[in-house]
Amino acid sequence: MVDPRLSIVNKRLGKVENIIAVSSGKGGVGKSLIASTLALILSRMGHRVGLLDLDFTSPSTHVILNIEGLHPEEEEGIIPPEAHGMKYMSITYYTRDEPTPMRGEDMSNAIIELFAITQWGALDFLVIDMPPGIGDATLDMIRLIEKIRFLIVTTPSKLAFETVRKLIRLLKELGIPIIGILENMKMRESDFIRKNAEEHNVPYLGEIHFDTRLEDSIGDVDNLLRTQFAQGVRETASNTPQFKT
Amino acid sequence: MVDPRLSIVNKRLGKVENIIAVSSGKGGVGKSLIASTLALILSRMGHRVGLLDLDFTSPSTHVILNIEGLHPEEEEGIIPPEAHGMKYMSITYYTRDEPTPMRGEDMSNAIIELFAITQWGALDFLVIDMPPGIGDATLDMIRLIEKIRFLIVTTPSKLAFETVRKLIRLLKELGIPIIGILENMKMRESDFIRKNAEEHNVPYLGEIHFDTRLEDSIGDVDNLLRTQFAQGVRETASNTPQFKT
Repeated sequence: MVDPRLSIVNKRLGKVENIIAVSSGKGGVGKSLIASTLALILSRMGHRVGLLDLDFTSPSTHVILNIEGLHPEEEEGIIPPEAHGMKYMSITYYTRDEPTPMRGEDMSNAIIELFAITQWGALDFLVIDMPPGIGDATLDMIRLIEKIRFLIVTTPSKLAFETVRKLIRLLKELGIPIIGILENMKMRESDFIRKNAEEHNVPYLGEIHFDTRLEDSIGDVDNLLRTQFAQGVRETASNTPQFKT
Repeated sequence: MVDPRLSIVNKRLGKVENIIAVSSGKGGVGKSLIASTLALILSRMGHRVGLLDLDFTSPSTHVILNIEGLHPEEEEGIIPPEAHGMKYMSITYYTRDEPTPMRGEDMSNAIIELFAITQWGALDFLVIDMPPGIGDATLDMIRLIEKIRFLIVTTPSKLAFETVRKLIRLLKELGIPIIGILENMKMRESDFIRKNAEEHNVPYLGEIHFDTRLEDSIGDVDNLLRTQFAQGVRETASNTPQFKT
C-alpha cells in the first residue's frame, strides 16, 4: 500500500516556488552555515523564505541563528514559527532530548511526517539544510519532493570532493536538477574544484574564502551578515539565476 | 531469532587486544586522517595493527593512504590485505561502484557481515574509522563489539562540540569506555574544548594545530608521517596510557 502521507506532501508545498536543498558529500564543509546565511540573505532581499533543518546528523541552524524558545504551532497541521523574518522548522523539534538516537527507518518516517504536516503556505524559497552525503534522508527527499533542486557545498579538499562526485552521479542518474557547486573554506589558490565541476558539467557557483571571524558570529545574526563569509554567499546569490525571482 | 552471526563476531575478534573506535559528532573534523595516521604510527612503533574503514558516509582512508588494487582474500572467511605494514579492511570493498547508496538497514547488515567474516588474527590494535555521529552504524558497533573504546575527534568549533556532547551522553548512558577527546584543526588559543571535556569528565588528549601542508600529503604516507599533524597524533599516542601495551 502506498503511504497516504506521500500524496499530500506536494500539496503542502504547492505554494512554495523554489525548493533549494543545500547538500554536501561529507560533513564539516560549512553546509549549515551556508544554508542559514543564504536563507537570511534571500529574506533580507525581500523574498518570502522558509528554512528547514533536516540535518539530523548534526542539527545546528538553531545554534547558528540563535533560535531558542520557539515552537511550531498546531492548527490543521503544523505552522512553522517565524525567526529573523523567515519561517523556520527543524528536525530537532522532533528529536531533541531523545535519550537514544533514531534508527534510519524511524528518521525516514519522521521526515515524511514532517513534510506531510508542515504548513509552509506561500514562499518564494524553501531552503533545506540536508544531512551530509547520500544516505536514506537524501533518497527520501528526492523521492518525495517534486520541485527539489540541489546546491552542493564542498571545501577545496580532495577528500571532500571525492564524496561530492558520488552525489553528482546519483543526482544525474535520477534526473534531479543541480543548481551548482559552491566552494567554501578556501585558503589558497587552486582550481581543483572548478575544473572538476566543469568536467562533470555542473555550474561552479564561486568560492568563499575561509573566514577566521565566522566562529565568533555563530548565534549572532547581525554579525553573521557582516562577515566576509556572508558577503561571499550574497555574491553567489546575486550571480546565480535561480536565486532571482 | 537472534542473528547467528552475532555470536561469532567476538570470536573473530578474540585475539585483538585493543579496539579503538575513532569517532566524531559531525563530519569534517579530521576523523579519517587521525584514524589513518594513528594506525600508521602505532604500526611503526612495532605494534600489530589493523585499520578498518566503516565510514560509509565518506570513506577516505584508502585515498589518504593511497591503497589501490588490494583486495581481501577469501579463505574460511575474509583475510584483510596488508598495506603499509597494517591489515586493512574497508566498507568500500562491499559498496564501491554501487549505482545507488545502501539504505541504513542494508548498511547495518553489511557491517555485521563484515565483522562476522573478517579474520583479523592476532592484533595489538584495531583502529576503526567510524561514520560520523550517532547513527545506526555507531549503535550497531556498540551492540556488537564487546571491547570497543571511543576516541572522540572534534574541532575547536561550537557547532562540532554540540554534536560531540550528544555522543558523550550516549556512550556514558551505555557504559562504553571513552579514551578521551582530541582537539583537531586548532587555529588559535581557546580552552573551550578542554573546559567542556573536563565538565563532562572525559580526558582531554591534546590539541593538533591546523596544518596547511596536510592536504598535499594525502595519498603519500611518508610525507604524511612527516607533517606537524602526524607529530601531533604521535604525541597524543605517546601521552595516552591506552596506546601503550
